[in-house]
Amino acid sequence: MRATVVGGSGYIGGELVRLLLGHPEVELAYVTSTRYAGRPLRTAHPNLRGRTNLTFTQDDEVGETDVVFLAVPHGAAMKEIDRWSALAPRIVDLSADHRIHSTDLRERYYPGGVPDQEWLARFRTGIPELHRDDLRDATHIAVAGCMANAAILALHPLAAAGLVAGTTLVDARTGSSGGGRVPDEGSHHPERSGVLRMAKPHGHRHMAEIIQACGVPVYMSVTAVEAVRGVQVVCHVMLRNPTTERDVWAVYRDAYRHEPFVRLVRERSALHRMPEPKLLSGTNFCDIGLSLDEGGEHLVVVAAIDNLVKGGAGNAVQCLNIAAGWDETSGLDFIGLHPV
Amino acid sequence: MRATVVGGSGYIGGELVRLLLGHPEVELAYVTSTRYAGRPLRTAHPNLRGRTNLTFTQDDEVGETDVVFLAVPHGAAMKEIDRWSALAPRIVDLSADHRIHSTDLRERYYPGGVPDQEWLARFRTGIPELHRDDLRDATHIAVAGCMANAAILALHPLAAAGLVAGTTLVDARTGSSGGGRVPDEGSHHPERSGVLRMAKPHGHRHMAEIIQACGVPVYMSVTAVEAVRGVQVVCHVMLRNPTTERDVWAVYRDAYRHEPFVRLVRERSALHRMPEPKLLSGTNFCDIGLSLDEGGEHLVVVAAIDNLVKGGAGNAVQCLNIAAGWDETSGLDFIGLHPV
Amino acid sequence: MRATVVGGSGYIGGELVRLLLGHPEVELAYVTSTRYAGRPLRTAHPNLRGRTNLTFTQDDEVGETDVVFLAVPHGAAMKEIDRWSALAPRIVDLSADHRIHSTDLRERYYPGGVPDQEWLARFRTGIPELHRDDLRDATHIAVAGCMANAAILALHPLAAAGLVAGTTLVDARTGSSGGGRVPDEGSHHPERSGVLRMAKPHGHRHMAEIIQACGVPVYMSVTAVEAVRGVQVVCHVMLRNPTTERDVWAVYRDAYRHEPFVRLVRERSALHRMPEPKLLSGTNFCDIGLSLDEGGEHLVVVAAIDNLVKGGAGNAVQCLNIAAGWDETSGLDFIGLHPV
Amino acid sequence: MRATVVGGSGYIGGELVRLLLGHPEVELAYVTSTRYAGRPLRTAHPNLRGRTNLTFTQDDEVGETDVVFLAVPHGAAMKEIDRWSALAPRIVDLSADHRIHSTDLRERYYPGGVPDQEWLARFRTGIPELHRDDLRDATHIAVAGCMANAAILALHPLAAAGLVAGTTLVDARTGSSGGGRVPDEGSHHPERSGVLRMAKPHGHRHMAEIIQACGVPVYMSVTAVEAVRGVQVVCHVMLRNPTTERDVWAVYRDAYRHEPFVRLVRERSALHRMPEPKLLSGTNFCDIGLSLDEGGEHLVVVAAIDNLVKGGAGNAVQCLNIAAGWDETSGLDFIGLHPV
Repeated sequence: MRATVVGGSGYIGGELVRLLLGHPEVELAYVTSTRYAGRPLRTAHPNLRGRTNLTFTQDDEVGETDVVFLAVPHGAAMKEIDRWSALAPRIVDLSADHRIHSTDLRERYYPGGVPDQEWLARFRTGIPELHRDDLRDATHIAVAGCMANAAILALHPLAAAGLVAGTTLVDARTGSSGGGRVPDEGSHHPERSGVLRMAKPHGHRHMAEIIQACGVPVYMSVTAVEAVRGVQVVCHVMLRNPTTERDVWAVYRDAYRHEPFVRLVRERSALHRMPEPKLLSGTNFCDIGLSLDEGGEHLVVVAAIDNLVKGGAGNAVQCLNIAAGWDETSGLDFIGLHPV
Repeated sequence: MRATVVGGSGYIGGELVRLLLGHPEVELAYVTSTRYAGRPLRTAHPNLRGRTNLTFTQDDEVGETDVVFLAVPHGAAMKEIDRWSALAPRIVDLSADHRIHSTDLRERYYPGGVPDQEWLARFRTGIPELHRDDLRDATHIAVAGCMANAAILALHPLAAAGLVAGTTLVDARTGSSGGGRVPDEGSHHPERSGVLRMAKPHGHRHMAEIIQACGVPVYMSVTAVEAVRGVQVVCHVMLRNPTTERDVWAVYRDAYRHEPFVRLVRERSALHRMPEPKLLSGTNFCDIGLSLDEGGEHLVVVAAIDNLVKGGAGNAVQCLNIAAGWDETSGLDFIGLHPV
Repeated sequence: MRATVVGGSGYIGGELVRLLLGHPEVELAYVTSTRYAGRPLRTAHPNLRGRTNLTFTQDDEVGETDVVFLAVPHGAAMKEIDRWSALAPRIVDLSADHRIHSTDLRERYYPGGVPDQEWLARFRTGIPELHRDDLRDATHIAVAGCMANAAILALHPLAAAGLVAGTTLVDARTGSSGGGRVPDEGSHHPERSGVLRMAKPHGHRHMAEIIQACGVPVYMSVTAVEAVRGVQVVCHVMLRNPTTERDVWAVYRDAYRHEPFVRLVRERSALHRMPEPKLLSGTNFCDIGLSLDEGGEHLVVVAAIDNLVKGGAGNAVQCLNIAAGWDETSGLDFIGLHPV
Repeated sequence: MRATVVGGSGYIGGELVRLLLGHPEVELAYVTSTRYAGRPLRTAHPNLRGRTNLTFTQDDEVGETDVVFLAVPHGAAMKEIDRWSALAPRIVDLSADHRIHSTDLRERYYPGGVPDQEWLARFRTGIPELHRDDLRDATHIAVAGCMANAAILALHPLAAAGLVAGTTLVDARTGSSGGGRVPDEGSHHPERSGVLRMAKPHGHRHMAEIIQACGVPVYMSVTAVEAVRGVQVVCHVMLRNPTTERDVWAVYRDAYRHEPFVRLVRERSALHRMPEPKLLSGTNFCDIGLSLDEGGEHLVVVAAIDNLVKGGAGNAVQCLNIAAGWDETSGLDFIGLHPV
């Protein structure tokens, strides 16, 4: 299958290129970048040095391929959806444009642009663990946001089982790559290094996706932390009825028993007893762990991912694998490093 | 005033030494360390190089002084309280031994040792912002724990005003120096570097102090983060009635208007709009900021301190300044660095 | 081919396990650890979670396999060489014991133990770029030290071409994982974080290997830097005669044109113009770059590797691939991450 | 004495403000910034929160004061020297414009602007350890560059004693604050974090100052490392004749015995045996250590400073203290933190 990556010089775009170059079923045909057009991929992504001779192209040089990945800023995907759909039967959109199907949620969290309703209706939600059957014959896929994806995988089993009371608190921590490639005052190393920057105490857009997927009310706070890659969400859930940790684990095991990329972290004595983002760099895993207060009501669920992989490019490839009928783990076999 | 620091080779002890060497009213007489006895202070604290010729002594070489600071492991202060009280009319205990006055709370969070009740009754709580009058004639002072101190300063004004509903969530983040000087598997750099280690999802001991000081129920989770110094607490408070951010600020301004070491962080447009621990390294400040959800009920209060200063040695010196009738800021004038 | 990893709970051992689990020609039979015996591999290496059900075994539970990797402390390999050689026809030693063939160099840099001379004579030097033919029929392979390997790959082309005058200065910088898994005062996070610790200004043992391989005199200084993985060497070479950068590049291109894991870094305008260790985490690459002073005599050659991969486990697998007649890159296809 | 800081929103400017606010003899009258004019100082320097109510002013709002500090980009100081000299009898220039007195060196390392020769002739070199007498009656002072200052303090005693043979290699490592406040691709956190970026293998401008001060030929390489503050230089010196470490130490002791801000680091058994920049954050110290090869000819001299303090603002204040006849350490008494 021949593939195009639009917006290939960004961090999500670069990660798509890395994964697709190693994918046994995919041939990378075009990688676009307005800024880097005409230059080798390695000038934007030095890890690709020696691995490919491809150069970046302009958007308007792209010919027909079998799938187009849109790794573009929010707003740009909906604007150009006709163009890209004319060039490929499959579209995988990594922007936020086609994620939210509820008009209410979109108006609240994404004021401004409105996607074309017909196109929007074709897009399936790119969360394999929740929508695998839906994805099998998908032509248009909207991949979830990084923090949203982690929070949804952390909360969905509880919400689906009706165990959640009240409003859930999602404390999200994110590395600097989530802010993208363009430097600004906040990403300047002397300012960004070593921070615990409470960047968004309320109202983060990823809440829209969590509410859409889980159907429970949430507050979400986002702290920028010292890391390049990695997202961790700590969910404080009040359970409807007092229960035991064993019973909560059973809910998660039922939900994720057969998932290739969700790992339940349950250790008694090891050093690493909770999901740790740094261990997931480069992998498509979502690690989930939990702790229940002795009262049996306050549950802490922790999930960790690499924001550029399971929170973006890897999840996109996993969705394509499902839609194309390939082995779901194709191109996603890196298991991560320790120590790191 | 001549001073003794017991346990002077630890990190809190070293910070005490640094502050006392620069204190205009204090002369450092003895600094004890079993491990380093006989060696110059700089071998344990290289920042003191060229600043003092003192050497560490054994505990049993200490003579009478005017004040003894106990920077010792929990359990050791209560065990030796007779000995140190015989050598000085004033004791400042930086361990947890004499912090908790409620038997219930102590049994729940500090099972094991029980301090002598007569000595315990003499100890005043070393939180100047709450107990300044109490501290003016104190001879025995128990300085608060680092995360507890930050959380108490963040929550007390709300709790005292009766604004808090339900259970408050305290998400605490801590640097590695809080774990003390002794290396272990978890502090080994390849494992500790870059972590977001959910070290204690439930049941942390510092909850006892927060509950004692604020009188409201809390859940507390502790995450070890990439930092050497620094504690940040993010408190999720449900307000009893919907209110405005302006009204909440008024509560904090009333509480801390005259405090020399509490700074309210309220910026519209600057990069640093919330308390950032890295900016407080070496200072005795507690910075406090907040954000209220548009519904007016979910309040996020953020507080940051240097765990070794306002969370330990600096707070101890501030308490002594009050008890001795000196300028409360003596020896505590460092304002911190930027960038850092 | 069935394989045994001795010393599998250490960092080099863990990296061997990671690579061998993904190797198409290898089946991992035994992984030994005195400390972790009986426990799952993931307790020491959390990245292996969900990837394998193997548990650590004691050394004396190991049966016959086709190859034994010795990831043990220096001294332990030579002591047990009879035992392991009886259990496998191939031995890959990652310790220093069988690296140095010159008695003079060994006595100077490795006083203490002396390997059995017959065994030593069987060991081939595990540097594929210099000894590929030698390795094709090797049964016993001694893999190079991490900093030595980087320095040798940086200097050998020049030395072999007779271009080096005087004494070469090798400034090596190393991450914390190079110090191994056992915590000590120097690896304690509050002390190790953010250092530029000139750990060894003179006399580092890896000089022995560099001198043995390149035949030129060197001084080597080692600085511990803020990183978990990664080694960078900066070599200051005085050229025998003034020359041009183009001519120097020609020497390196001739040397490494066909090497699958040496990449020459030569960029005019990109951000990443010199070898950067962080980009190589998890990969088997050695990146090499250079700069010649305008006088044409002072040449700076920079090489970077992941100390646990090209500086250890990856190099060992590459050597085995050659010795076994497999594709030289088998199991070593990870290309690294950016950003990271 | 009333003072003006021109270019007060930059990092060096902010550090000047921090130091001058704590200086017993100085009153800060104006702090200029084109970008921040009209806003409180804390918006650019959050560490000053609660410490001062000053706001930034435009350059053309500055009135007469007793001293003007120029913390401006290179080129801007020489351009506006008439203006500022008209407003104050004393000028302390922290830019490079008035550092180099040799035309040859300036043409080679600073092509482009040429300072007015009359003004240039008035400027004294702002290195107290070398030019204290010269500074006592100075009205115009040009403070040294950060890496140059560290290298000069490391090398000058040897050079002055005629002990240096051949060309000295200066390997400089620098934190990100040295690049100033303006974000760019290279300072973007995902790219800058964790680097060992060989930024300048040859031809760095600070060589001009080292050569001017020490009179010996040097090669200098600059690596950007993971740090915000801090410069470390590792100087590889070939001695004219074989000597002993004790004799080399004697040279340094003679040179710096009475210096308040140079500390010789000579430890046998402590963890911190060599100058470590992180321990110097916020201080005006230059720490110097050394190691001599067993052959007695290859000497490694290591010096560390905080680039914004001893490498800039602190050195400027020390020079002013000398010129004004005050205690040389006024305003510079912070001794630094450990751990950090």
